[in-house]
Amino acid sequence: MSSTVSPLAPKHVPDMPVIAGVRLATAEAGIRYKNRTDVLLAVMDKGTAVAGVFTKSKCPSAPVEWCRAKLKSGKAQALVVNSGNANAFTGKTGRASTALTAKIAAKAVGCSESEIFLASTGVIGEPLDATKFDGVLGRLAESAEPASWLDAAKAIMTTDTFPKVATATVKLGKARVTINGMAKGAGMIAPDMATMLSFIFTDAPIAPAALQALLKRGVEDTFNAVTIDGDTSTSDTLLAFATGAAADHGAPKISRASDPRLKAFTKAFYGVLADLAEQVARDGEGARKLVEITVEGAKTKASARKIAMSIANSPLVKTAIAGEDANWGRVVMAVGKAGEPADRDKLSISFNGIRVAKSGARDPSYDELQVSEAMKAPEIAIKVSLGLGKGRDRVLTCDLTKEYVAINGDYRS
Amino acid sequence: MSSTVSPLAPKHVPDMPVIAGVRLATAEAGIRYKNRTDVLLAVMDKGTAVAGVFTKSKCPSAPVEWCRAKLKSGKAQALVVNSGNANAFTGKTGRASTALTAKIAAKAVGCSESEIFLASTGVIGEPLDATKFDGVLGRLAESAEPASWLDAAKAIMTTDTFPKVATATVKLGKARVTINGMAKGAGMIAPDMATMLSFIFTDAPIAPAALQALLKRGVEDTFNAVTIDGDTSTSDTLLAFATGAAADHGAPKISRASDPRLKAFTKAFYGVLADLAEQVARDGEGARKLVEITVEGAKTKASARKIAMSIANSPLVKTAIAGEDANWGRVVMAVGKAGEPADRDKLSISFNGIRVAKSGARDPSYDELQVSEAMKAPEIAIKVSLGLGKGRDRVLTCDLTKEYVAINGDYRS
Repeated sequence: MSSTVSPLAPKHVPDMPVIAGVRLATAEAGIRYKNRTDVLLAVMDKGTAVAGVFTKSKCPSAPVEWCRAKLKSGKAQALVVNSGNANAFTGKTGRASTALTAKIAAKAVGCSESEIFLASTGVIGEPLDATKFDGVLGRLAESAEPASWLDAAKAIMTTDTFPKVATATVKLGKARVTINGMAKGAGMIAPDMATMLSFIFTDAPIAPAALQALLKRGVEDTFNAVTIDGDTSTSDTLLAFATGAAADHGAPKISRASDPRLKAFTKAFYGVLADLAEQVARDGEGARKLVEITVEGAKTKASARKIAMSIANSPLVKTAIAGEDANWGRVVMAVGKAGEPADRDKLSISFNGIRVAKSGARDPSYDELQVSEAMKAPEIAIKVSLGLGKGRDRVLTCDLTKEYVAINGDYRS
Repeated sequence: MSSTVSPLAPKHVPDMPVIAGVRLATAEAGIRYKNRTDVLLAVMDKGTAVAGVFTKSKCPSAPVEWCRAKLKSGKAQALVVNSGNANAFTGKTGRASTALTAKIAAKAVGCSESEIFLASTGVIGEPLDATKFDGVLGRLAESAEPASWLDAAKAIMTTDTFPKVATATVKLGKARVTINGMAKGAGMIAPDMATMLSFIFTDAPIAPAALQALLKRGVEDTFNAVTIDGDTSTSDTLLAFATGAAADHGAPKISRASDPRLKAFTKAFYGVLADLAEQVARDGEGARKLVEITVEGAKTKASARKIAMSIANSPLVKTAIAGEDANWGRVVMAVGKAGEPADRDKLSISFNGIRVAKSGARDPSYDELQVSEAMKAPEIAIKVSLGLGKGRDRVLTCDLTKEYVAINGDYRS
């Protein structure tokens, strides 16, 4: 948790409504940090559906393995999240630690261990002493209440400079349902310390399989379209919980993601995911610029994504943006190295709406002074037109600053 | 060209012998820099064989396209290299510029335009005014002499902090033959400004096809195993020239790379490539540490390469090394994100010979103080043992420092 808030932080933090069936509580368990909360317990009503997507890392953390295994039942009654220690690459100790945490939580909440979901973020490779949760989780289960969303978002922060929450209220059938979400970033997003964690809660009555389908599709153009440094955490976890409490005031029970009644909900759900994903980019380690990269005219959307990610992850592009330099030569370089179909002589590139290159060369109308001025903005939109097809995609990233190096060069010490 | 030489620069610069059939000259053509040489002309005797490997970028520079086309004949009589402007992404102007440069050079040297090879390094997207070569190349062709290897290496530098040369003398048959090479780096190596250029010259009588086969195999574990920032230049060019002059004192003419008489030569040739490639890593932009990453126990060599490159290109690993932190958790992260077969619980990791992790967890004997001391060394060897198979590979990189960000955030301005 940094003392300096990112200059890209949203100006407005939404009021987070309660979600029927969800209660939250946080505590100082002393995992690693002093004088701040570092453990979150979310207690859900019996019957809550759960869905999840996780890191693609071949070396996932112990909590990721735990959640993957427990997801099969589709039912959840509690979520325990700690910051300060990722319980990743901790071998047998790590597995023992997740099992003990689940046991303590299940006792505290009064449910089966298989309905406990876990996430940890922080240092990798340090054993997590789960006995620290003993007592703490019991007290949290008793004190949990429906309104502490911002406190919850704060307890899961690591190098984040601001808590990330988003909310939407929408009609499902004739009933109003609510979606609340929280997330933490802040490096290693595409994510030792960082790790992307996000938790979404709704009172909509959506069956586990439908919720899973919704989540899987929803992340594609939101969380999966954000990159800070191209590194991928061992711990990335996005869980969605649907308590179903809105059925009590008439919301229809949804069993398939393709149910036409889900249309407005789906849009709102994706909106919450997109909002949180953008906040993660806005809080990239050392970030001073939010960068949106749009690639159009590619052969396919997948090809556009690959090229956009190549640009977004290029250290040379990211340092140029940090230096407020519309260095489109580096964008060409990043297009070229993506390995996807591209024709240099059809390429056009613009920065914040000003075209600097077209048809494979500098745009003759390109005014360096005008572009230099535009590059001072805190939000930079890079648009690349390939002129080959109809494939289009968009990803978000941030610039690469000396502060990123300072944060990550001094982190463990 | 920086005023501060990299602390990783070799302590010793070899005396470069002459290569019979090669003459060199440099000049200040005023392409971009003031008060330094920026153009190199190498003149080779008639009948010189040429081979080349180039960037895999889908948006290559005009000189790369020129060389690829001219390589078919396998014959060269001159090489023109300029620094300061890469003539990349310059559209039709770029093609006209390469054609004009070749025309001027062919007239100066007295050969066909198809025997002129070109390379340019510097800013991308700025038109290169080839008329600046008019007159200059004529004078250079007259003044070229066999001994100016270090001057030649200096003329092709951009953000390099030291000239890079290497040499070897070896027996081919009963005759002594010589191999000289030069290279320039310094970012964007895997490479706007940077770009890897390297030129190898020998008096050995090797036919074009054999030289091409030798070069292609030779780069795999040398230049292709070096990465600074994962970015790939539009201009990477490695050319090899064999004048054949050593045939005059009895060197056998070699037509196939598999010729057993080529064994010692091949080893020496690869040695020169490896030496130059390491110098490129030692001069990575802002580098303070040379990092050697060895991955063993992978399923295959290709899998080991992919994992080693994932570690070498990870900003989180590179910043940790800059911070002298043996952050093996980030190494695990980079192994995991490579997407190659890996079993967390079989992983071992060492830094400069000190094992910090084994069997998927912290090595119990791991002494933080001892490792911290070892991380202060200018050369860091990271070894990862996967325990899955016999695949092994090694790549070189450098750390990621605030200076890298400064160099690349302020480059064009």
